[in-house]
Amino acid sequence: MKIGFIGLGQMGRGMAARLLQQGHELIAWNRTYAVAETLQQRGATAAKRLEETLDAEVVITMLADDVAVEAVWIASGLVNRMPAAVVHLNMASVSLRMALRLARLHQDRAGHYVSAPVFGRPQAAASGQLDIVAAGPRDALAHCVPLFEALGKRWFDVGTEPAHANIVKIARNFLLGAIIESLGEAFALVEKSGVEPAQFLDIITSTSMSAPAYKNYGRLMITPPPEVTFTLKLGLKDVELALQAGGDTGVPMPTAALIREQHLAAIARGYGDNDWAALGNYIRECAGL
Amino acid sequence: MKIGFIGLGQMGRGMAARLLQQGHELIAWNRTYAVAETLQQRGATAAKRLEETLDAEVVITMLADDVAVEAVWIASGLVNRMPAAVVHLNMASVSLRMALRLARLHQDRAGHYVSAPVFGRPQAAASGQLDIVAAGPRDALAHCVPLFEALGKRWFDVGTEPAHANIVKIARNFLLGAIIESLGEAFALVEKSGVEPAQFLDIITSTSMSAPAYKNYGRLMITPPPEVTFTLKLGLKDVELALQAGGDTGVPMPTAALIREQHLAAIARGYGDNDWAALGNYIRECAGL
Amino acid sequence: MKIGFIGLGQMGRGMAARLLQQGHELIAWNRTYAVAETLQQRGATAAKRLEETLDAEVVITMLADDVAVEAVWIASGLVNRMPAAVVHLNMASVSLRMALRLARLHQDRAGHYVSAPVFGRPQAAASGQLDIVAAGPRDALAHCVPLFEALGKRWFDVGTEPAHANIVKIARNFLLGAIIESLGEAFALVEKSGVEPAQFLDIITSTSMSAPAYKNYGRLMITPPPEVTFTLKLGLKDVELALQAGGDTGVPMPTAALIREQHLAAIARGYGDNDWAALGNYIRECAGL
Amino acid sequence: MKIGFIGLGQMGRGMAARLLQQGHELIAWNRTYAVAETLQQRGATAAKRLEETLDAEVVITMLADDVAVEAVWIASGLVNRMPAAVVHLNMASVSLRMALRLARLHQDRAGHYVSAPVFGRPQAAASGQLDIVAAGPRDALAHCVPLFEALGKRWFDVGTEPAHANIVKIARNFLLGAIIESLGEAFALVEKSGVEPAQFLDIITSTSMSAPAYKNYGRLMITPPPEVTFTLKLGLKDVELALQAGGDTGVPMPTAALIREQHLAAIARGYGDNDWAALGNYIRECAGL
Repeated sequence: MKIGFIGLGQMGRGMAARLLQQGHELIAWNRTYAVAETLQQRGATAAKRLEETLDAEVVITMLADDVAVEAVWIASGLVNRMPAAVVHLNMASVSLRMALRLARLHQDRAGHYVSAPVFGRPQAAASGQLDIVAAGPRDALAHCVPLFEALGKRWFDVGTEPAHANIVKIARNFLLGAIIESLGEAFALVEKSGVEPAQFLDIITSTSMSAPAYKNYGRLMITPPPEVTFTLKLGLKDVELALQAGGDTGVPMPTAALIREQHLAAIARGYGDNDWAALGNYIRECAGL
Repeated sequence: MKIGFIGLGQMGRGMAARLLQQGHELIAWNRTYAVAETLQQRGATAAKRLEETLDAEVVITMLADDVAVEAVWIASGLVNRMPAAVVHLNMASVSLRMALRLARLHQDRAGHYVSAPVFGRPQAAASGQLDIVAAGPRDALAHCVPLFEALGKRWFDVGTEPAHANIVKIARNFLLGAIIESLGEAFALVEKSGVEPAQFLDIITSTSMSAPAYKNYGRLMITPPPEVTFTLKLGLKDVELALQAGGDTGVPMPTAALIREQHLAAIARGYGDNDWAALGNYIRECAGL
Repeated sequence: MKIGFIGLGQMGRGMAARLLQQGHELIAWNRTYAVAETLQQRGATAAKRLEETLDAEVVITMLADDVAVEAVWIASGLVNRMPAAVVHLNMASVSLRMALRLARLHQDRAGHYVSAPVFGRPQAAASGQLDIVAAGPRDALAHCVPLFEALGKRWFDVGTEPAHANIVKIARNFLLGAIIESLGEAFALVEKSGVEPAQFLDIITSTSMSAPAYKNYGRLMITPPPEVTFTLKLGLKDVELALQAGGDTGVPMPTAALIREQHLAAIARGYGDNDWAALGNYIRECAGL
Repeated sequence: MKIGFIGLGQMGRGMAARLLQQGHELIAWNRTYAVAETLQQRGATAAKRLEETLDAEVVITMLADDVAVEAVWIASGLVNRMPAAVVHLNMASVSLRMALRLARLHQDRAGHYVSAPVFGRPQAAASGQLDIVAAGPRDALAHCVPLFEALGKRWFDVGTEPAHANIVKIARNFLLGAIIESLGEAFALVEKSGVEPAQFLDIITSTSMSAPAYKNYGRLMITPPPEVTFTLKLGLKDVELALQAGGDTGVPMPTAALIREQHLAAIARGYGDNDWAALGNYIRECAGL
């Protein structure tokens, strides 16, 4: 399929490489052109101008945050120049507010829009092992299915409202934050009584908490990764998306509120660029460990 | 094995029945004698006096809380009348404070003491499907292994300090509370945006949160169980055990603190005798759902 | 003095009336012209176009929030058309972010800018009983002093950086929120034990908490006011300004975070348009009162 | 009046000295006899045995906490040996639970019991400047009024139920904790934006927060006192009394819950024996200050 691809950050690069490897044709754009160029060896066309990405069946946006979407996709006027047949497939994590706004923008001009945020880190993106949550009008969605199959080990259809996919992503990432915070507290508790966190982790992940999230973040909390692929600062961004969505829809989220402040403190104490699991270090400090 | 069994609440009854079925000999005592009598048909001896339970190789206590342990096991003088050869196996969830006190009491009189709290609801107890976390001096522990095998589908050895088993149980149950609270918040968030919590649950438990705790409590939150086997009030007790242990060992647990107050509010609003998952109902109310 | 006055909401109307009564000359603008017209009887000139307000010595802005400032003052281009001699005096409560942005905008064009948010409700505005916190370059500030004296019973000079006045206002209003929340909790606690909140309030405001904030909000909590002059929703906005400022400057504010969620819940349960003190009603509900 | 006085800690010593100075006759007991002896120079009788204190019109207990009351007053059997005519006046801060228990103990034996906890630090005790909150049956209370007048600059009558005085004290001290925590957060916020906390404090205590609690704790937060008279650890005890009372009466107190954990963290980081206001130091640390 001929695909426009906008946004080649850590996640975007991995996804673009995977799509090329799976035989798709890519016109890739990045704020820094040099990054797009690196994909040329793999067969992509590096776009100099944003508009070039619109000469495609589907345009994927994988921009860092709302501000980038605003600048690159909306304020640039790109969204309004999208040919009628093209599908905009937004796979980045945006706020609920932006998700609703994008849906409205496309609806107003009868454009095709699918939202499909992903779960997974850059490595999973590059190897087609993402989990994808997709929503959008049936026709548009049908166009994107081959891409979900190329990029994900699984994908979920949550209906026709694009923003529904985003709220699922936001709520799920909030749960990740809650796991990290509560695991950090539990680790500090057992450690201060003389039990190794690793042993505790082994017990809970052998029984009722036998989920990848506990296993991965528990392990990262005990042994920091050699390379950081998802920073604590990005974790804060995710928690704030939940709080903003809660504010906009009238849902109190006291756990999210608490976690946000823990992140701010962890950042103030120097853990912002560490892996998200470093929240556990801050929690240990608070316990005098 | 000849076993004294003290405390035939919902959990204790199931465990006692399982032990009988597995061929062990039981002298069972309960505060209300009639409950002990019901086990006679299954072959147990119903003890009229507490002391009768000491005529055994291992005495299991499965009392409701610290107050019951204090009254039945300590203030009654039973602990001091334990013959030298008998092993006290405490399988109930007590506070860290009580766990340390029991260990000290036994140590002072050179008694044999093993702590082995369990994960699981009454049904798991009756069918030998518990998860057991055990700790105690090697000799005493070795005596108890056949019982762990009869009662559990798995057991974990966390070393020679009995209280280590308790802190693992306390920290793990705090994590359960954190799962319920955060899941309740996430459910309210997606629901207010138009996504069915059941669909959200399906997605997260198919991916990074594919653990029994999420599956079970998520399901219970969506469809309350016909019969309540673990009440929200008991959940509060568990969260308070974590807070007390945190206080005693100097570990701040802001998430546990928040969750305790949510439980108090849920109880004040009438959910105390519902299943623990009913915390989600309270959270929905707070979101105006 | 000849004053441009932009923004005639509840507070702005009171302040404008007071300035007229104290002998100042006013060119008043409001989004809804009819509101400006009502001030004509008192001697003001009702401006049809925003630019008319710039024909003055000082232009006061008293706009509702950041969005209004953005639209009316910045996006309209007004700030860039300000004559060199005019002083912009912003007396509204804006975010720290907007406060810094306004300071930068003026600095870039060598404009005169003073920030002077006020404490007090509309009645205090109309009677010159506000408390004013002012900051800005010395020359510009000196021009505004007569206005502070007309409007306030007191004013505080917090230096040359305009945004310093805003952070003081934001931090102080957060403290108000903390007072309301904690007072609500304390009231529920004593009430459930049989002590009248009114008696409790009398005791604490006769002793260590003898401050207007406790007296006023305590009274409003016990007897809701006949007319609402500051809604719970506006209280939420103030708490969110603190959280945003905390996020921007790296200051964790766990109390503010908790209070925000309490406000969201109170709003979801129907108290949003009540007086800020109605937070106490929500807290009572949570205690089953 | 002839007074038995039990408990000569920092507060008790000051109160005992004041009573002697005001012409009362004292039989003073302390766990460490030497402390009671020091009062002999001022005219007190130092009791060797607890029972000696019962030879009085009123017996004041000023014991450190519930555990001390349990040991010295209840388990010792003293309460049961109180002559019919003697009034027990408990001026210490006990839990709601203990307050209710003491009331019941006296009621069961038709004894005279008044509860009258105090607000103020040791210096205020020694100079008769305490604030006293009293409750108890009318006759018994009437006996104590001269003592309230000797010790306090003010006293409040909150009715016939002794425990009502305690819940007022507990709720008020929780508010103190909330003031310290929120003030700490506000100080960190303004400081990070470049405003001196002292200036902020001056503004708020000149306006809506012009209460001794803000003035004193604000000052202590900026300039730690040369001598610590109320430690952060004691502050934690007070917050925990509120949480326990909330738990017992079904009142969620999310602010108290949050503050307790902040105290635990501050203690873990070494501030436990500093003045209560040192909570602000911990909060500053969390902001990277």
